[in-house]
Amino acid sequence: MAVEDRTEQHALDLIARVRSKPLRFRDEQITMAHGAGGKASQTLIEGLLAPAFGVRELGDAAAVGELAISTDSYVVKPIRFPGGSIGELAVNGSVNDLAVSGARPLALTVSLVLEEGLGADELRHEVEAIAGAAEAAGIEIVGGDTKVVERGHCDSMYVCTTGIGRLDERARLSPALLRPGDRILVSGSIGDHGTAIMLARGEFELDAEIESDTRSLWPSVDTLLEASGDSLHCLRDATRGGVATVLNELARESGVAVVVDEAQVPVHPAVAGACEILGIDPMYVANEGKLVAFVAPEAADEALAALRSAPGCKQAAEIGEVKTDPPGMVLVETAFGGRRVMDLLVGDPLPRIC
Amino acid sequence: MAVEDRTEQHALDLIARVRSKPLRFRDEQITMAHGAGGKASQTLIEGLLAPAFGVRELGDAAAVGELAISTDSYVVKPIRFPGGSIGELAVNGSVNDLAVSGARPLALTVSLVLEEGLGADELRHEVEAIAGAAEAAGIEIVGGDTKVVERGHCDSMYVCTTGIGRLDERARLSPALLRPGDRILVSGSIGDHGTAIMLARGEFELDAEIESDTRSLWPSVDTLLEASGDSLHCLRDATRGGVATVLNELARESGVAVVVDEAQVPVHPAVAGACEILGIDPMYVANEGKLVAFVAPEAADEALAALRSAPGCKQAAEIGEVKTDPPGMVLVETAFGGRRVMDLLVGDPLPRIC
Repeated sequence: MAVEDRTEQHALDLIARVRSKPLRFRDEQITMAHGAGGKASQTLIEGLLAPAFGVRELGDAAAVGELAISTDSYVVKPIRFPGGSIGELAVNGSVNDLAVSGARPLALTVSLVLEEGLGADELRHEVEAIAGAAEAAGIEIVGGDTKVVERGHCDSMYVCTTGIGRLDERARLSPALLRPGDRILVSGSIGDHGTAIMLARGEFELDAEIESDTRSLWPSVDTLLEASGDSLHCLRDATRGGVATVLNELARESGVAVVVDEAQVPVHPAVAGACEILGIDPMYVANEGKLVAFVAPEAADEALAALRSAPGCKQAAEIGEVKTDPPGMVLVETAFGGRRVMDLLVGDPLPRIC
Repeated sequence: MAVEDRTEQHALDLIARVRSKPLRFRDEQITMAHGAGGKASQTLIEGLLAPAFGVRELGDAAAVGELAISTDSYVVKPIRFPGGSIGELAVNGSVNDLAVSGARPLALTVSLVLEEGLGADELRHEVEAIAGAAEAAGIEIVGGDTKVVERGHCDSMYVCTTGIGRLDERARLSPALLRPGDRILVSGSIGDHGTAIMLARGEFELDAEIESDTRSLWPSVDTLLEASGDSLHCLRDATRGGVATVLNELARESGVAVVVDEAQVPVHPAVAGACEILGIDPMYVANEGKLVAFVAPEAADEALAALRSAPGCKQAAEIGEVKTDPPGMVLVETAFGGRRVMDLLVGDPLPRIC
């Protein structure tokens, strides 16, 4: 073992030890970072909310008998953007949390917080977006609620959706099932949604044709379950914090290492260009219609072929592998043969992305 | 029939005809009234949301197989008030929507929209309020979500809860079961919550000791189901818009008349005093722990006795009766022997009460 290797090993061991400690919420006030899906979010959830509410994790769909249930609030700004709007996002977001839990979407509730003065046309647009996305995803809207707050007390509207799904009999999905050797697939190009929102805000002098990838992931999950059955070990939708955050959460939860081959990660050239100019790694940028799948090695090729046949998944790719060491960490192998740690983000580069 | 009687009958017929028309949403923008639970809310829901989403009504718990599901957003201002806070309100509100649908509360999701700069102590207080109310109501928190918006873009926090309950086998509840002769019970003094919030805002120079009545209604529903079984025809929790709004919605939905004996309606003296000074009828003021029950006449006395034995229901009372004429309307018989129409409110006297 060369000196550099031993030094690297020592550093990795140190990070792994620090990371295995339970998180505590010690902040004095809420910052935008607590909503960004990175380290601060994790600390708020694992250090305060989950223990107080007696739940293990607050991010995913929970099982209630044979049903799965998942809730999310949407505060995306602006509410309309290339490729979609808050209405579609709110439906697809809850649909996808169910789908990656192996549950077929069944019923949805929609709760609206509307801003006084919101134009009826704008409201109608979102109501139609919600209805259209629900129909496309095959989920039935069963109930809802409406509140109104004074001008300036929300941005046009906030939407909270809760999805109910039926756990699919073919699905045996859990982070606990990750095994060294498992192949890691993504269902298409990454970073589209977050980049589209950033550009839609007009804060950057960039003019690229990038659309949000918001869509229901149930068809791709259905395809994967049919093709791979028990060999499909775990699924996640890579929303806030992007693929990097999903991989870090799973590595930490399962005590495995994740190694990503950077050259294999599909990124739309316009997204790659925008991210390079903005100094952001697309691996951390939110997606709203992309999943990450962990598949047993012998089933990986078939799973990838099946995934590519699902709507919106032509660019699906195998991007890495589960390893043993260093436990709880994500490493990236670069095109130049080097490797680096891909950690959770501490700050919030992209607030209010969903 | 005296001349006055015929004139009154003519007026009532006219109102009934207007009221039976389907509502259309024609407003150009959202106003605070759309969130108040009165006519504007009804128009928004029945005229836009429900048809677009393909649901009959958006206010109550919906049935999904043997389960009931209900969602609500809470934007109450201030978030703490005598007798409770937004956390308790958010839990009890969804619990009660399930309870009055005849469903035993089972599982709850909690989605938070937090304001940047919110103090950790304030957050902890609400997290504990949520956990405490859930424990008191016997409902398990199974999942959640957290978003953060910039300073000024929400008031400390908005909370959205979704409750799942199991439909109780004893329950046969529906507005369609209302029959002329049915007795109308309320589970206690009305208007406490809304009055407590108004006074907590400090907009009025009134100093009365009034506490919110926020609590789980499942124990009182359980008691009523046990005592009355099939004789219990319909239940509603009288939240936004108060008892008057609940009675109007049911009269309209079922095509029956409702006659209320004003002298029998229990009102806390401090609430009655505050409402008189503010020029508000307590029948329109929000409750967060009171239900309205419709019971077959022969079972009414037993139901009332049972209800009075439930926690928080000592002041339960029989306040009126279902009649045939005029269909779709609510009439109040005053202490002086007169009667008047008690219509839905058009404006919003009490914004952001829950």
